[in-house]
Amino acid sequence: MTEGWSKKVFLRLEPPSPEDPASLQERILKGLSGSASFSEGRREPVRIRPAVLGEAGEILKQQGWEVTAVLGFDGDVWELLRLEAGDTAKEHYGLCVDLGSTTILMELVDMNTGEVRGRESTFNPQIAFGEDILTRIFYTKDRPEHRVELQKAAAEGLRELMEHLSEKTGADAFSCASMILSGNTTMIHFLLGLDAFGVFQSPYAVETLAPDVCRGEELGLPFKGFVYCYPALANYLGGDIVSGMIATGIPDREEICVFLDVGTNGELIVGNKDFLLAGAGAAGPALEGGVVHTGMRASKGAVDRVSASEGQLRVHVIGEGQAEGICGSGIVDLLSELFLNGWMDIRGRIGEDAPPAVKTPEGMAVEYAPGLYFYQSDVDEFLKTKAAAMTMVEYMMGLIGLSMEEVGRFYVAGAFGTHIDKESGVTIGMYPDIDREKIISPGNTSLLGARKMLLERSAREKAAEILERMEYVQFGAVEDFIHRMAAARAVPHTDLQRFPSVVKKLEERMKNKGC
Amino acid sequence: MTEGWSKKVFLRLEPPSPEDPASLQERILKGLSGSASFSEGRREPVRIRPAVLGEAGEILKQQGWEVTAVLGFDGDVWELLRLEAGDTAKEHYGLCVDLGSTTILMELVDMNTGEVRGRESTFNPQIAFGEDILTRIFYTKDRPEHRVELQKAAAEGLRELMEHLSEKTGADAFSCASMILSGNTTMIHFLLGLDAFGVFQSPYAVETLAPDVCRGEELGLPFKGFVYCYPALANYLGGDIVSGMIATGIPDREEICVFLDVGTNGELIVGNKDFLLAGAGAAGPALEGGVVHTGMRASKGAVDRVSASEGQLRVHVIGEGQAEGICGSGIVDLLSELFLNGWMDIRGRIGEDAPPAVKTPEGMAVEYAPGLYFYQSDVDEFLKTKAAAMTMVEYMMGLIGLSMEEVGRFYVAGAFGTHIDKESGVTIGMYPDIDREKIISPGNTSLLGARKMLLERSAREKAAEILERMEYVQFGAVEDFIHRMAAARAVPHTDLQRFPSVVKKLEERMKNKGC
Repeated sequence: MTEGWSKKVFLRLEPPSPEDPASLQERILKGLSGSASFSEGRREPVRIRPAVLGEAGEILKQQGWEVTAVLGFDGDVWELLRLEAGDTAKEHYGLCVDLGSTTILMELVDMNTGEVRGRESTFNPQIAFGEDILTRIFYTKDRPEHRVELQKAAAEGLRELMEHLSEKTGADAFSCASMILSGNTTMIHFLLGLDAFGVFQSPYAVETLAPDVCRGEELGLPFKGFVYCYPALANYLGGDIVSGMIATGIPDREEICVFLDVGTNGELIVGNKDFLLAGAGAAGPALEGGVVHTGMRASKGAVDRVSASEGQLRVHVIGEGQAEGICGSGIVDLLSELFLNGWMDIRGRIGEDAPPAVKTPEGMAVEYAPGLYFYQSDVDEFLKTKAAAMTMVEYMMGLIGLSMEEVGRFYVAGAFGTHIDKESGVTIGMYPDIDREKIISPGNTSLLGARKMLLERSAREKAAEILERMEYVQFGAVEDFIHRMAAARAVPHTDLQRFPSVVKKLEERMKNKGC
Repeated sequence: MTEGWSKKVFLRLEPPSPEDPASLQERILKGLSGSASFSEGRREPVRIRPAVLGEAGEILKQQGWEVTAVLGFDGDVWELLRLEAGDTAKEHYGLCVDLGSTTILMELVDMNTGEVRGRESTFNPQIAFGEDILTRIFYTKDRPEHRVELQKAAAEGLRELMEHLSEKTGADAFSCASMILSGNTTMIHFLLGLDAFGVFQSPYAVETLAPDVCRGEELGLPFKGFVYCYPALANYLGGDIVSGMIATGIPDREEICVFLDVGTNGELIVGNKDFLLAGAGAAGPALEGGVVHTGMRASKGAVDRVSASEGQLRVHVIGEGQAEGICGSGIVDLLSELFLNGWMDIRGRIGEDAPPAVKTPEGMAVEYAPGLYFYQSDVDEFLKTKAAAMTMVEYMMGLIGLSMEEVGRFYVAGAFGTHIDKESGVTIGMYPDIDREKIISPGNTSLLGARKMLLERSAREKAAEILERMEYVQFGAVEDFIHRMAAARAVPHTDLQRFPSVVKKLEERMKNKGC
């Protein structure tokens, strides 16, 4: 049986009698150690704070001796957080969070069944202090009072989500006894009110990579429970990636796995049960459409699918309304179609024979929707980033003498991976040309890992073990990285042999064109 | 080397470098585990709260990497409470407290040397809610808001003492990392904000006998450190007695020890390394002068010594001024002199031939000082109480088949024991007639035990072991207790053979009188 970060244990206590005048504390502890669902017979130490004991005494004396003990794990021992009258063990919830710099996502999880009762998201209120992480880091530099602002903003975001979850599910999120957070190193620093400048500045000594469990109250969160933040490997390799390892189970797998998380930053893990290499690089925003002129997130108005037939581009717009821009999956489709139709060459140059091609002051561009242009410079930016990501992967594989064919699972985490069309991804060389079922979009592994941790406390030791095993690869230090990247910039790659299925597709298209 | 409840460890940390970019938390933890004075090489877990880590980061970055870590023990693990710039390990203090219902006594102790740097006392501000414990218990019955008042009063008393100690010693009592408290079960309940009604009401199930270590903040105390309260055996056998055991070392001694603590209540331990019997009874206030008409505490104006010569009583008054009343030691002297001079008989009846004897509406009385009377009813009350105390002792000795001659150490704890003249005590049968050096006045063993605990954390396991070993004797349940008490009411006892030295004294006086 797995054991989560909180417990609710129904206790049928005996009221004190002359034969058994033990203290209330002793009765509660005895009840717990006698409860199969709590300790399985072991006498686990359970701490009780004076205020909680006082309230517990009131409940026992006024509401009777059948109570439910709510217990939270403080990182070292269990602590009684409160007694509830009667048997409430069935209403037992916990919270898990993906603390992103843009979006905070929270789930209310049934601790008995593991079922997600509700999921809510909100923009990180820290955005008010800077859209991107670096702006926020500089905002707080040498200004402890600004750190307080960011800390409060993070707490407010979490509080808001707890409120929404309570409304939506009818369960009281504020009564949860535990919250597991996964986020990058900077986000965790901000949440804890810590100076994050070390994330950015050499020698990259941060305040903490493995914060201790703390109380919600310490963070200004309106709940009496404990908060655990996933530990990180390094400044640019945060707890969200370790959480992803727990989510995917890569560190226990037989087959070679690649784990690519493209968010604000790009993080990469290559490994299995025998080894774990980790690296990070600036491989993010471009892939999500961040650096593209008309790029936008995958929300209403974004072109998320592009196809071509009979010399025409056809686009799908999220929300079915007018196109306002293009998101990551749209870009990948677009580039794939441009390439397969011969409208863009292997070097990523848009050809003048492309149907919607136009010449602009910025050079060639494709008008993918009325009035919306995808410029040559956008293509270049995007390919540069995909090249960076792919080179990281290849370089790491090479480090251990493996080729891409040996990849057993290629995970692309996050919303990006979820929306990308696998074929298009392979076509432009963003994904390796392997069996498509080996390309996996596990979704938000940061959140998923947080949920797993919430429900299975032993994952904490697992996370520590993963960190012990992980070897951090510094790409900046790699000599021929630039050279390798240039090769990976081509569509799909200068070495076409690596992409036999793309070659096949090209050949088929040619044949069809020839018809 | 003994280890106290707090530590101060000077650390010479290396600033981060590209070769060693470990987090600040990791540097501190590494520094600690590398410090001989902290862990002797072991890697002890040390927790750091987010706020403390944030402040520590500021100090390291702004004041340099030579710092002193202040650590408190939370009951399970060490916690970093703060960093101080430079080497401040020499200024390392802790607090110990005897939390009495009337008086609170606090010491500021040098944790490096064990030396008491200052001792202050104050009236317990709870007196405003009732002079005696019972009044306070009833005041808080079913009134949680009254419990808050009493809790705050206790905290205020402690705060005041910390302030006084800071002023007197120049050391900052508020910077201490630990406070050890010893007090009876009710006082500890009040301090923790708990309902103490169980102390008084059958079946005497209190809220806690062994409160967990908590933070000073939780009790409204203005210091960032941990508070440990001595655990108790039962409602009427509080942590102050367990503290007394630690102070006197009785549980480890070869010889049979009797430990009598007469305060508001009377508590008794008989035992040694092989056994420990414990009991409590209403043996207190009368002995301290509480039930006597002109009785008073041993303070200015109290008659504390009485002698007789040439048919006259001579008294000593504390402060050398006019007598205002009589305290415990004065009463014991007075009764002894009345008895030895034949002015009071073995049954405690004041004779009409006593020089200052007068007849009052309350019966016979002795005018021990101008206008101050010690009535027959006072004698009766006092002897009843001494009889109760002595009967408890004798009964317990009898339980294990021992006679008073076998007592190796007879401790009379508290101010009472300190002031009483041993000869007078034996004469009236309050002390057994044994070698006088076996009669020991250890002083305030509650405070002494708290100090020992403060300086030697392992005493906590010792206290738990003592509680395991202690057998609680219910005197109320003893059949012939009343009968025994009647015998012990005589001066010194109906069985004069038990007091050979008193018989000898009487014989000598008779001889002298005859001259």
